[in-house]
This record gives sequence, structure tokens and C-alpha cells, in this order.
Amino acid sequence: MEFSSKLLERAVNEMSQLPGIGKRTALRLVLHMLRQPKEQTIALSEALQTMRNDVKFCKSCHNISDQDLCEICTTPNRDLSVICIVEDIKDVMAIENTSSFKGLYHVLGGKISPMDGIGPHDLNIESLVKKVKEGTIKELIFALSSTMEGDTTNFYIYKQIKEYQILTSTIARGISVGDELEYADEITLGRSIVDRVPFESSLKL
Amino acid sequence: MEFSSKLLERAVNEMSQLPGIGKRTALRLVLHMLRQPKEQTIALSEALQTMRNDVKFCKSCHNISDQDLCEICTTPNRDLSVICIVEDIKDVMAIENTSSFKGLYHVLGGKISPMDGIGPHDLNIESLVKKVKEGTIKELIFALSSTMEGDTTNFYIYKQIKEYQILTSTIARGISVGDELEYADEITLGRSIVDRVPFESSLKL
Repeated sequence: MEFSSKLLERAVNEMSQLPGIGKRTALRLVLHMLRQPKEQTIALSEALQTMRNDVKFCKSCHNISDQDLCEICTTPNRDLSVICIVEDIKDVMAIENTSSFKGLYHVLGGKISPMDGIGPHDLNIESLVKKVKEGTIKELIFALSSTMEGDTTNFYIYKQIKEYQILTSTIARGISVGDELEYADEITLGRSIVDRVPFESSLKL
Repeated sequence: MEFSSKLLERAVNEMSQLPGIGKRTALRLVLHMLRQPKEQTIALSEALQTMRNDVKFCKSCHNISDQDLCEICTTPNRDLSVICIVEDIKDVMAIENTSSFKGLYHVLGGKISPMDGIGPHDLNIESLVKKVKEGTIKELIFALSSTMEGDTTNFYIYKQIKEYQILTSTIARGISVGDELEYADEITLGRSIVDRVPFESSLKL
């Protein structure tokens, strides 16, 4: 692509570094910015800079935060003895949106994936094991995605903490609420039959 | 969407102002930035700011440029007497990529579209008519998209300049090179038959 302006070219090149944004999309976005008031672009670039410079990660759960400890960790009426292990902060947001969980989180920051060069030491596993050692935790909930990498990570963590007497659980896999059985894949359907729950407990929800 | 950090929320909100980028995509992009080295985000935001502050539009053709006159207008061996009228700078880039045009451009900055509140005075039409009046131009090529708005704009400009003795033309409409006739729409196919060209002239390309 030939640009008539070096400034435009640089902006497009930087923009197209983002995942899923190619040169054409980047050009479309940048030309849109040129048509909008100058203040909008300034606000965007300042928001990005401030965020990148000033954002912190919670010292306890590694969730994104403006303080040393995140809002979830500092909320008084949450159950400090149950910790839900998630991959990244999008998962925290997703679970928080359900309003069904009142414990704390632990954000690993990824999954063990030798293919991508991510080993256990690149993840926040050590601080999790330390928390378990301290003895205040009663239950760990594994809420990683059920892929090869997710299962590997679950198992790695499980091996580290199994000597301590705590409950471990994984989130239930099964047919989505509202889904038709005939369109479900057989592994999910199979799991939902094996892990069936008492009918009375489903009435409570 | 609930964010655990105000800085993150602001960055996502600003990012989702861009066309085609919703909150979820914005969050994905912003979290990607947090995983990349800090320098990358700083470079992006500086590139956007500099571009928005310093970019100029060519005083003659209104193309984007770093100088008062753009590279195309200042290239010595181009034909100053032929002007191709396009909607925006993406069209200039598209035509330049073909290497088939050696004249100059005139970027209107849009099309007349009463539905979107864009009238003739929001476009760079006056400066085009002024150029024609000066008498150095021999041909105007209309290269707007063939929509209702494009045709309206073409006709508006045509009315303004028809008293001056210059050639006017529009780019050829027809079947794309490599396309099968059976899949072409009937209007395009009809135009390509009506506007057929001598077989000998097609051999030259």
C-alpha cells in the first residue's frame, strides 16, 4: 500500500499491529479519526497511554486494578475461603456478570502451553500455591476452558496443592440452558449425563 | 460490562468509539496491549496524536499530505490537464496502485447525500470549478462510485462546468476481468454491452 503521507503511514502501521486489524481496517479507522474532531483522537491516545502506564494488577488475585488490591478482593462480604481459578480478566468479568459467585478469584494470566512457549513459571501459579499453604482456603474451583492446555494447567496446579486438605472442583460442563439436545456435541452431552444432578437441586435455581 | 479498573474502562470506551469496534473487541484489543511491551502502546498513541495534529491536506487536490502540496501534485512528469475526481483518499490509493493513470486527482471528501446531511458545500467542489475556470484543464474523469449519491454528485459538478469547453468522462463500468458472465448482475452486463470497445483496443492492454 502506498501512502501519500508518512504520518498516515506510521499511524496505519502501528494500528495494524493490533490482533485482527489488517492494513485496510487500520486505514479505515485512521481515516475515520481524521474526519472526527481532533479531541476524540487525543482522548483515545491519552486513554491508551495512561492505561498502559498506570494500570496495576491486584497483588492478591492478579486481576486488573487501579489500587494495590482490586475491588473484588477488598469487598467485605465475599467468601475469602473459596477461590475460583481463571485464565484472564475477561473470565473474571464473565463470572462476575452472572452474580452467582461470592468467593474470590485468582487470575493465572494464561494457560500452560508448550506450543506457545508458555510454561508454569510464566503464570501466577506460585502465588496461588502460597495462598493454599497459608491454610485459609477451603475450596479451589478450576474454571479454565476445557482444552488440552486448560486441562494440563488444572492438573499441574492440582499436583502442587493436593497434599493440603482442601476441596477442589471444576465448573460443570453440560448442555447450555435453552439448547436442544439433538444439536449438542456428543462429548458435552455425555458429560452432562455422567455428571447429572439431583432433580430437586435443579428446582432451586 | 463491569470493569475492575477505571483506566481500563476509559481505554475500552474510547476504543469502542471507532467504527466497527464494539465493547468486546475494544476490550480484546486493550488487553492485548497490556500483554505487549509498554513501548508498543506508546508508539501507537503517539503516532495517532502526531498524525491527527500534523497531517495536512494538499491545497490543490485535497489529498492527504505532509506538505502543502501532495506528492502526486508535485511529481514533474504527470499530465496536469487531466483530473480524476474521486470521493476520498482511499480511491486515490486504489487508482495509483493500478499505475494506469498519469494525471492529477481531485478529492471531494464525500458525496452529495441529503440523507446524511451532506450538501455540495460540504465537499471540495468550489475549488474544482475554480481550477476548471482557470482554463488549464482539458479533461475531467468522474470516478465516484455508481450509486444514487455518486450520480447526483457527478451531475451537480457537470452542471457547474459544462459551459467551459472541456472533455468529461466517467470510468468504464462492466464485467470484472476474470469474471464469468453468468454470475454478473444484469445492469453491469447491460452496461458492458452498450459501452463495448473495439476489439483491437482491448488487444493493446
